[in-house]
Amino acid sequence: MTTQELSLPTVRAARRRVRQAAFEVEPWAVRERSLDVELLARGESVFALSNGHVGLRGNLDEGEPHRLPGTYLNSVFEYRPLTYGETGYGFPESGQTIINVTNGKIIRLLVDDEPFDVRYGTVLNHERLLDLRAGSLTRTVHWRSPAGRAVRIRSTRLVSFTHRSIVAIDYEVEALEGGARIVLQSELVANEQLPGAGNDPRSSAVLESPLEPIEHDAANLKLQLLHRTRRSGIGVAVAADHVVTAPDGLGVSTSSEIRQDWGRVTVTSTLRPGDTLRLTKFVSYGWSSVRSRPALRDQVAAGLTGALHTGWQGLVDDQRQFLDTFWEGADVTVEGDLALQQAVRFALFHVLQSSVRAEERPIAAKGLTGPGYDGHCFWDSDSFVLPVLVHTWPEAAADHLRWRHRTLDKARERARTLHLQGAAFPWRTINGEECSGYWPAGTAAFHVNADIADAVIRYHDGTKDDEFDAEVGVEILVETARLWCSLGHHDRTGAWHVSGVTGPDEYSAIHDDNIYTNLMAERNLRAATRAVRNSPDRAEDLGVTDEEVRTWERAADNVVVPFNSDLGVHEQSAGYTGHAVWDFEHTPEQNYPLLLHYPYFDLYRKQVVKQADLVLAMQTRGDRFTPEQKAANFAYYEAITVRDSSLSACTQAVMAAEIGSLNLAYAYTAEAAFMDLHDLEHNTSDGLHMASLAGAWMALVFGFGGMRDSDRLGRLVFAPRLPEGLTKLSFTIRHLGHRLRVTTDGREATYMLFDHRSQLRILHHGEEIAVSAGEPVTVPVPPPPTPPKITQPFGREPRLSPR
Amino acid sequence: MTTQELSLPTVRAARRRVRQAAFEVEPWAVRERSLDVELLARGESVFALSNGHVGLRGNLDEGEPHRLPGTYLNSVFEYRPLTYGETGYGFPESGQTIINVTNGKIIRLLVDDEPFDVRYGTVLNHERLLDLRAGSLTRTVHWRSPAGRAVRIRSTRLVSFTHRSIVAIDYEVEALEGGARIVLQSELVANEQLPGAGNDPRSSAVLESPLEPIEHDAANLKLQLLHRTRRSGIGVAVAADHVVTAPDGLGVSTSSEIRQDWGRVTVTSTLRPGDTLRLTKFVSYGWSSVRSRPALRDQVAAGLTGALHTGWQGLVDDQRQFLDTFWEGADVTVEGDLALQQAVRFALFHVLQSSVRAEERPIAAKGLTGPGYDGHCFWDSDSFVLPVLVHTWPEAAADHLRWRHRTLDKARERARTLHLQGAAFPWRTINGEECSGYWPAGTAAFHVNADIADAVIRYHDGTKDDEFDAEVGVEILVETARLWCSLGHHDRTGAWHVSGVTGPDEYSAIHDDNIYTNLMAERNLRAATRAVRNSPDRAEDLGVTDEEVRTWERAADNVVVPFNSDLGVHEQSAGYTGHAVWDFEHTPEQNYPLLLHYPYFDLYRKQVVKQADLVLAMQTRGDRFTPEQKAANFAYYEAITVRDSSLSACTQAVMAAEIGSLNLAYAYTAEAAFMDLHDLEHNTSDGLHMASLAGAWMALVFGFGGMRDSDRLGRLVFAPRLPEGLTKLSFTIRHLGHRLRVTTDGREATYMLFDHRSQLRILHHGEEIAVSAGEPVTVPVPPPPTPPKITQPFGREPRLSPR
Repeated sequence: MTTQELSLPTVRAARRRVRQAAFEVEPWAVRERSLDVELLARGESVFALSNGHVGLRGNLDEGEPHRLPGTYLNSVFEYRPLTYGETGYGFPESGQTIINVTNGKIIRLLVDDEPFDVRYGTVLNHERLLDLRAGSLTRTVHWRSPAGRAVRIRSTRLVSFTHRSIVAIDYEVEALEGGARIVLQSELVANEQLPGAGNDPRSSAVLESPLEPIEHDAANLKLQLLHRTRRSGIGVAVAADHVVTAPDGLGVSTSSEIRQDWGRVTVTSTLRPGDTLRLTKFVSYGWSSVRSRPALRDQVAAGLTGALHTGWQGLVDDQRQFLDTFWEGADVTVEGDLALQQAVRFALFHVLQSSVRAEERPIAAKGLTGPGYDGHCFWDSDSFVLPVLVHTWPEAAADHLRWRHRTLDKARERARTLHLQGAAFPWRTINGEECSGYWPAGTAAFHVNADIADAVIRYHDGTKDDEFDAEVGVEILVETARLWCSLGHHDRTGAWHVSGVTGPDEYSAIHDDNIYTNLMAERNLRAATRAVRNSPDRAEDLGVTDEEVRTWERAADNVVVPFNSDLGVHEQSAGYTGHAVWDFEHTPEQNYPLLLHYPYFDLYRKQVVKQADLVLAMQTRGDRFTPEQKAANFAYYEAITVRDSSLSACTQAVMAAEIGSLNLAYAYTAEAAFMDLHDLEHNTSDGLHMASLAGAWMALVFGFGGMRDSDRLGRLVFAPRLPEGLTKLSFTIRHLGHRLRVTTDGREATYMLFDHRSQLRILHHGEEIAVSAGEPVTVPVPPPPTPPKITQPFGREPRLSPR
Repeated sequence: MTTQELSLPTVRAARRRVRQAAFEVEPWAVRERSLDVELLARGESVFALSNGHVGLRGNLDEGEPHRLPGTYLNSVFEYRPLTYGETGYGFPESGQTIINVTNGKIIRLLVDDEPFDVRYGTVLNHERLLDLRAGSLTRTVHWRSPAGRAVRIRSTRLVSFTHRSIVAIDYEVEALEGGARIVLQSELVANEQLPGAGNDPRSSAVLESPLEPIEHDAANLKLQLLHRTRRSGIGVAVAADHVVTAPDGLGVSTSSEIRQDWGRVTVTSTLRPGDTLRLTKFVSYGWSSVRSRPALRDQVAAGLTGALHTGWQGLVDDQRQFLDTFWEGADVTVEGDLALQQAVRFALFHVLQSSVRAEERPIAAKGLTGPGYDGHCFWDSDSFVLPVLVHTWPEAAADHLRWRHRTLDKARERARTLHLQGAAFPWRTINGEECSGYWPAGTAAFHVNADIADAVIRYHDGTKDDEFDAEVGVEILVETARLWCSLGHHDRTGAWHVSGVTGPDEYSAIHDDNIYTNLMAERNLRAATRAVRNSPDRAEDLGVTDEEVRTWERAADNVVVPFNSDLGVHEQSAGYTGHAVWDFEHTPEQNYPLLLHYPYFDLYRKQVVKQADLVLAMQTRGDRFTPEQKAANFAYYEAITVRDSSLSACTQAVMAAEIGSLNLAYAYTAEAAFMDLHDLEHNTSDGLHMASLAGAWMALVFGFGGMRDSDRLGRLVFAPRLPEGLTKLSFTIRHLGHRLRVTTDGREATYMLFDHRSQLRILHHGEEIAVSAGEPVTVPVPPPPTPPKITQPFGREPRLSPR
């Protein structure tokens, strides 16, 4: 299928086929109308709840069946040894992996002694609903036990955005005809057995039972467990309390038990037909690697007290109010494609969940939705998630960067180990230490440092938060600039090169002058120069000399941007276009992703792109390419890009839109947006792809909205245009304390400023417009440029259905 | 110290300081006059005996003290898991490691119940002598026990060149004043405890007790143990028999005992002063992974019977006769530097020992002298050891290549795994399977395939052994040519590139168009073309088509040889001279070897050369460089070559001699030659550096002899010239069944042909000379060219003493 054939009906038809196996399409919710045990794992990730501090996978209340039970606390990890067939200097010896902490979400139900389990008896109805405005997961079940007793169950679960430590579950069971004897067991379970652990003999010992019991206590309906991780020495506390509500006059008995690794509150009653027994469970989580056992115990007790004081309805109301505020400044509306409408809100909701209360802890690649990538944070968060947060919930962006800043000492130490200057941030980490066990795609991917610097720049451009810059921003910019100066060198002609590094495309490694790396390093160096000039005192604290700044400027002024003038395209790295082109024609479909079927050796030395690299550079450093170069480059690299990474489609969408290939941009937007809802990569079970979710927003806002953070004069840039099939796009962003709404139907665009009596100067398709609060400005949308002929590698056209 | 200062007195003085801690300098022996327990490990390697099938470290007869006991059988290894911090497609999952098999060399002595141990009592005299003409290790000790009993011990040990399975030890103990009660315990010990094992919890389990007992038997003075390796399933059999000789009338009692893991023959007698008790021990070794237990048992029994039939003196005589034949066709004489004379004979002796009876088993990097590099065979054997054997003992060269040929199926399978054509030989292996746990310096170093092909070409050039070519040579050349065609590609201009590979220099990796690789691939492709044209039937068997041969020719005709015309030097790989130069000035001496103190990342991207790469290409493909280019290239790369590998000095010696820098060539010759005798790299304890030993010969013969295997017309090439300090150099080589002796005093050279009534046409300094058997030709030696100014990196001048 060539791009020319990517017509709207084709796209729609393909997507319709997929949707049948997915979730109901609604604008503000993700609804599952029946439970397919085969698809449990996907639902566990899609229905995950989190506030960035605590995360719960969407496991069923009764615990089983499950594919992967999961309760995570941001930054609670265990060490595991990293070994090598042949080791080398500077190879990290210790990895980290997020652990499944004490499960507080289990509420088991027995109906006349029969455990409620969807695999037994008859499920007459089963529905789950993730409500994107309420911020909760609700479930309704109508079940008849094998013995013929019928009950209706309603549960609502939330992880509070306003009470950081709190998970709350409201659980109701109603006896239907004939009544039933009901037992509810509300539990805390530590060291749950995880399916699939034990494949690797070295790590399973650690991960099968990661928590060492320290203390346990029960009183009335209150349970408390205190554990510590064995090697990383992190104390983990969890406490639960319960409120039982039953019809007047109904006898209810309760009891509690506690052991080292589990606690249980039991509620028993015999319900008459129509009676409802309600159990509201409040769970408080806390952890620390420094605080004492009593301090930790008191912390979770206090959290619990606060939640009980607010009460269930209070938590629900607060959650709604919090989200109302969020959506007012972040919503994206799409007309003409309800599935895409749903997907982008789903994406924004999960991006918020991954970050909003992380508070100086990392935003992991999978958020807190699953154990994928060992729970590590990569450059994705800085380069994909943060650009969204900067414009939707900038406080969370700042918090992530504060976490980066807190790890600066580790990054400086890593730089010393590598005999480099400044700070070398890790490729993958939980606590700031490098955990990459394969240096060509880890240590060598130094662009992560420029990506973090870029996030600092974006955050400041979007907020003018000078306090942040003084505390955090300047130091990050200076230390990364120092790194670049020790990584790069001037050749005999003075040109500044960065040799032997790995760019975003993981099918190339250890190449010279990766264009993305060089251009982002230049941006980093210039930003550091500006920052120390704007903050001379801070610069002095950091020991920056004029001489040092001149070396930054000299490097930035002379950065090499490889270009092949014969082909008229830029090179992803020096000499790249001279390499053999991958033999796409003879690569069968089942051999994708290529890295599972071909050696790195062969991938690295050929023209085959895993994920947007030069194309990403054209997005982030658009100022360095002419429109003609963008079109030629896009066509050239599109033909060799296989998108074996979830970090590619969104960037391709953005650049396809810029060069006028709107249908292709639409197809890639859908691919990014449906990555998890349609499980396009068959690994949503491990957790959601946060960067791809963020990419759904970017594809719409940066792609069809044509938004770029800042031009030379600091103005926001827009260039709205719509593909066939989308009748309207509207998005609201936060910028410099304003809210700005951009709306287009493809023919004209309207800019509207909220909140402040002020004016914003923006660019619309290259023309400056002044927008004043409360006074919408409507301007025409010019026709898009004519795109070049664009083809994808054989068999790698945009994915409209799961492969 | 610059090269200008490398005057003869400087060199000699530095070497004199070293020699004091080393061995006596004698032309035909290595003698140790006293035993320094601190230096035991070096002696264990230097005094190792081997015939390429069985190898014994030079441990003391009584077993202790030792640093590393070692008895090895070529290709008896155990598997061990290779694990990775992050694994990848095609990473080998299983490594191999040579194991210490049953120790048959132990003869313990008790003097009036006091164990003879050099750490106790008084050692009045202790001498060991490795006799390079006799092929044996003799030891004489004069010892007084703590109780005051004095004995004189004489032992001679040999590993037979004529009886492949046989180790024999003749052990005499003489009672001195007062007489003594003597007990001799001759042992077989399996699963000896190895010092230092157990650091790696994964491999120690395997290696601490690698042998599973199968069968044990004793009868009279005969012992026999049969074991099997646990995972690799290799049966290992050893049998020993003994002959006791005592003065007439002296009462001698004997007994034997055997258990699963050990056997012991005990000989007891009470000696009068002057009495000598003599025990001659014959040990036979055999192994097989396919033969049955009875077959293996019979095999060692037969070996033993054969040895007893020949008897001790017969073995000694055969050994001497064998070596006489060897030296007649291989000796190198050096006048003016006795230490170098000793070193080159020591080197040739060990090269012979590593290979002579290997018989279709590999020549390992350390021979059978120690467990270094896990007992693996690398390209060293093909590129450094074989060029020596081709001209000194060509049968052994052929055998090694027959082993390569036997592993072709594994190499083809590896190529299939990597999606390549033909055969991909392993970077490191014992049984032919790839064992490299780090692909950038393993899999990516595809030059090993051209190196094996090169050895095939050299062997055929030196022997015209057409039968070998038909059985072995053509198939290796064809399968490696096929590999190159799938590794290389033609760019848009038709130029043929090999991208993303690693050349000999391990401080560069995954570079494009490594010049050594490209030129050796070209040689491989042209040789395959010639071979199939000469052997059309064989070619048809191998399915070679005309079309295929044209692709080989087209690749060879268009091979890229990177050259920087601004600098007037070739590039080690594309773009190499544009990289930053390593900061040698700020690299402290203790940070060498660099790979232990800097990340590969940084080494790979900078101009710093671990070992000759382009300079090696100038030796092996001298036809592709003009004399001016050779001089300019040598000077350029010499300034960035740190020689962190033992595979460098010899090549630098050869090329330094060619460009006329004779004193530098002399210094590098010494470095190569004394690598192990002076333990220059502090790791001789793990085993001898076979390639560096071979390099000592190459430095003299290829360097000062100026010999090259073959010019365009198939003629041997010579260009003798001598440095200050060497007054005469003479070497004999075997070539096409002739023996040719070349002698020079630096002013003139004499060529003399032996054995055959025929004529050989050679080149002497570019002029053809015809040499007839029995008619020496003497010709003048022209003056050397004037070399360019040559410097080494700061602190990396030739090593004249251990660092």
